[in-house]
Amino acid sequence: MTTLLHINSSAQLSQRSYTRMLGQRFMQRWQAAEPDVTIIDRDVAADPIPVVDRGWIAAAFTKPEDRTPEMHAALVQSDTLIDEVIAADILVMGAPMYNYGVPAALKAWIDKVARIGRTFSFDLSRGDVPIEPMLGGKRLVILSSRGEFGFEPGGMREHMNALDPAIKACAHYWGVAQEAIDTVTIEYQEFKDARHDRSVAEAKDAVDVLVDHLLAGYAPGSEVEAKRVAS
Amino acid sequence: MTTLLHINSSAQLSQRSYTRMLGQRFMQRWQAAEPDVTIIDRDVAADPIPVVDRGWIAAAFTKPEDRTPEMHAALVQSDTLIDEVIAADILVMGAPMYNYGVPAALKAWIDKVARIGRTFSFDLSRGDVPIEPMLGGKRLVILSSRGEFGFEPGGMREHMNALDPAIKACAHYWGVAQEAIDTVTIEYQEFKDARHDRSVAEAKDAVDVLVDHLLAGYAPGSEVEAKRVAS
Repeated sequence: MTTLLHINSSAQLSQRSYTRMLGQRFMQRWQAAEPDVTIIDRDVAADPIPVVDRGWIAAAFTKPEDRTPEMHAALVQSDTLIDEVIAADILVMGAPMYNYGVPAALKAWIDKVARIGRTFSFDLSRGDVPIEPMLGGKRLVILSSRGEFGFEPGGMREHMNALDPAIKACAHYWGVAQEAIDTVTIEYQEFKDARHDRSVAEAKDAVDVLVDHLLAGYAPGSEVEAKRVAS
Repeated sequence: MTTLLHINSSAQLSQRSYTRMLGQRFMQRWQAAEPDVTIIDRDVAADPIPVVDRGWIAAAFTKPEDRTPEMHAALVQSDTLIDEVIAADILVMGAPMYNYGVPAALKAWIDKVARIGRTFSFDLSRGDVPIEPMLGGKRLVILSSRGEFGFEPGGMREHMNALDPAIKACAHYWGVAQEAIDTVTIEYQEFKDARHDRSVAEAKDAVDVLVDHLLAGYAPGSEVEAKRVAS
């Protein structure tokens, strides 16, 4: 049985959000093929996560056995968010581009999930790369939308794209290797023209193709399923 | 008289924050040379800004004359933040790298300052570049700190740097041209070794040099001052 962690971060809570529309499409198609799928919904826009503060940092960097009750309390939400990532086989992340980066609400989630002793370990004996991820074997699907266009490599706005790098740089915290990331993007939202219509249609198709492709990998008898049984 | 907008975003509120240390150094040196300088303090960590929500977006995209009292109320804080940017000659932005990007608290500020009709205009008759900044002539100083190193162009972690691109992509909203950005960065914070010590020392020196350089431009009789008198 597959577990999907569906993260939404669009401030538009209804179907006005293209990332929510794509995410819903993904979930419905998966559910149709695997009715027993577990879907964990994490909506960081409807239920905003407080930004990390001094107390959170102090708690996170104190060894569990040395934490005060206040420190434990400061980490409860972070633990929940991390447990959701650990439980998931695939993270499906709705990530609209806000001012060329991720929404602040999504960054608040990212900052609470990157945690020493839970999602990464730190050891200076490793030299210049002291950080090592603790999770592995998961996949990430990024469902994005952009008002403008040309943020892809070679595009006219590539240098302004601070969204894809921000997510990819943190994927290891979620147990996701760079080659295990798929991205579906709607562009031209501000232009509301034929290019936008085409982009929406192509993104819907891409989600369908992606779900079918991933389902094949997670189906009984598949490579992923074989690994899961073996572990 | 110069006006500096000092933005702090480190979750460390004390001198444990390197970006706060550098910012304080910047302000003290400027103040020593220009006692009448106006410093606006905006601390988005001590006083977090709520993330944009549906109501804020609806209010921002409604023409001022059509806004309800609730819509006006939703924009009060954003108006204050934008007024601070407008008042400033130089923005001094403390921006520690959190998980390869800006802190969520700083992104919340960025998202509330990018506003149609106040910091940018939007017109589809401009073709593929419909957004135009409304402010201009300001400078930006980025004071950053990083646990690791090698995020500069050509560095081993350049591809993971989602902080500098995120800030530079939005600088036009604050009236800052790309060539009007100076960056001072402390690296190796996690390593706590001689490289870190050297990085701290170099950053302090760089702040001093930068303040003196900028002061020369803003001094009575300088080019900047001449432009200001003329405008």
